[in-house]
Amino acid sequence: MLFRQLFDAETSTYTYLIADPATKEAALVDPVVEQVDRDLKLIGELGLTLRYCLETHIHADHVTGTGRLRQLTGCEGIVPQNANAACADRYIGDGETIKIGEISILAIATPGHTDSHAAYLINGDRVLTGDSLLIRGCGRTDFQSGDAGILYDVIVGQLFSLPDETLVYPGHDYRGHTVSTIGEEKQHNPRFAGQDRDSFIELMDNLNLPNPKKIMEAVPANERCGKIPAFL
Amino acid sequence: MLFRQLFDAETSTYTYLIADPATKEAALVDPVVEQVDRDLKLIGELGLTLRYCLETHIHADHVTGTGRLRQLTGCEGIVPQNANAACADRYIGDGETIKIGEISILAIATPGHTDSHAAYLINGDRVLTGDSLLIRGCGRTDFQSGDAGILYDVIVGQLFSLPDETLVYPGHDYRGHTVSTIGEEKQHNPRFAGQDRDSFIELMDNLNLPNPKKIMEAVPANERCGKIPAFL
Repeated sequence: MLFRQLFDAETSTYTYLIADPATKEAALVDPVVEQVDRDLKLIGELGLTLRYCLETHIHADHVTGTGRLRQLTGCEGIVPQNANAACADRYIGDGETIKIGEISILAIATPGHTDSHAAYLINGDRVLTGDSLLIRGCGRTDFQSGDAGILYDVIVGQLFSLPDETLVYPGHDYRGHTVSTIGEEKQHNPRFAGQDRDSFIELMDNLNLPNPKKIMEAVPANERCGKIPAFL
Repeated sequence: MLFRQLFDAETSTYTYLIADPATKEAALVDPVVEQVDRDLKLIGELGLTLRYCLETHIHADHVTGTGRLRQLTGCEGIVPQNANAACADRYIGDGETIKIGEISILAIATPGHTDSHAAYLINGDRVLTGDSLLIRGCGRTDFQSGDAGILYDVIVGQLFSLPDETLVYPGHDYRGHTVSTIGEEKQHNPRFAGQDRDSFIELMDNLNLPNPKKIMEAVPANERCGKIPAFL
C-alpha cells in the first residue's frame, strides 16, 4: 500500500493519500482546498488515478479540496451518512467498505464532534480518526450538533475496541505529533484515561475555545462539497 | 521498531524518535530545544530510555535539544565526524553503525549543505537525510562551508544508490510532505532530475535565499551542543 500523510500548516490539518501500487487507484481523505495543487502534483508524479475523496465530516476550520478535485479529476466525493452535503456522490454508513484496488477502507461511525462523522480503518491496521480521537486529545463538541456524551461513547466503545497496536492517524495535530496507537491513547490520552463519561462531558463543556477562524466560510462551503466562488 | 516523526512548526523541522520495543532503548535524531518537553513526555509515556541524541549536522535554523536532553537524561550526544562541536560525546564517521537494541543506525557521510553532515539509514529501509536530500528539494549550500558540487556528488553518488523503495525522511519540509522514496526523488526531484553537476551548481549558486532568522544564535549554540543561557 502507498500511504502518505500530508500536512496543511495553516490549519494543522492532515490529509491522507492512500493508493494501491498495483492498480494505481487512489483515494484522498480530508483534502484541503489550498493544497489541491500540491496533492494533484503528487498524484500525477506517482502515476495514480484519484478515484475517491472521502470526508471524515463537514469541517469547520478549512474548506475541503473535494470540490476542486471532483471538477479536475472526475473523482467521487464521499461523505458520512446523514452529513448535510446533498452535493456528495455517495454516503458511507457504519460498517460499509470502499475498495481501492486491494485496499479496504472501512467506515466506522464516530459522531460527537459533529453529528455525522466517520473514522476510516485502512486494511485493518491503521485508523484515520478525523476529529474524533486526536493524539492525546479529541475533537471539540460545542458546535455543529456536537455531543460530548456521544463522542465519549464512540471513542471508548468503538475506537478503543480496536487492537492496541492499531495506528491512529488524526485529522489534526497542533503539537507536531504525526501518529499514535490505540493502546497509547487508551493509556495516555488525558481526555479519557482516568475519566468516566460524566467527567468527560464536564471537561468538554468547560473548554471555552474560540470558534475556528474560518467557521463562517468553511461550514457552508463544505456543505456544498467545497464549492465557493473563490475556488471554482 | 517504534518510529515516530515529530514536527516543529516554527522552523518546519522534523525530529525522529527511534526505539526498540523489546529493550526500550531509544534515540532521537535532530531534536529541537523548544520541543524537549514534548519529546521527553512521549519518551516517558512509551516507557523508553533515551540512549542517544544524534545530529545530522550543525543546524543554522534552530537550536538543538541535545544539550537539555543530555542534562536531563544522561543520554549521549553524537555528531558527524569533523563537526565543529567539541562538546559532543561521540563522533560518527561514514559507514559506522550505532545499535539501539536490535535496530541499526548506519551513518552515511553526506556533506555539502554543511561541511560535516550525516544521513542515517535505519534498519536498511529508511534514511533520515537531514538537510542533504529533501522531498523534491535539497539543503542550501551558501553558508557553513556548504559546497554545491559536493552535495551533488553525495546525493547522486551515495543516496541515489540506495534501493528505490528506501523511504526518505527529511530534516525539514516546508510544503507539508512527510515522506518520499529514493526512487521518487531520483525521478521527480527538480534539483536532480534532468540536471548535471554543473547545472546543479549554477542553480544552487543563484537561489539568493535570505539567511535563516536564527542563524546568529543557532550556529554558535549548536557548536556547544545546544548550550545557551536561555535554555540551560
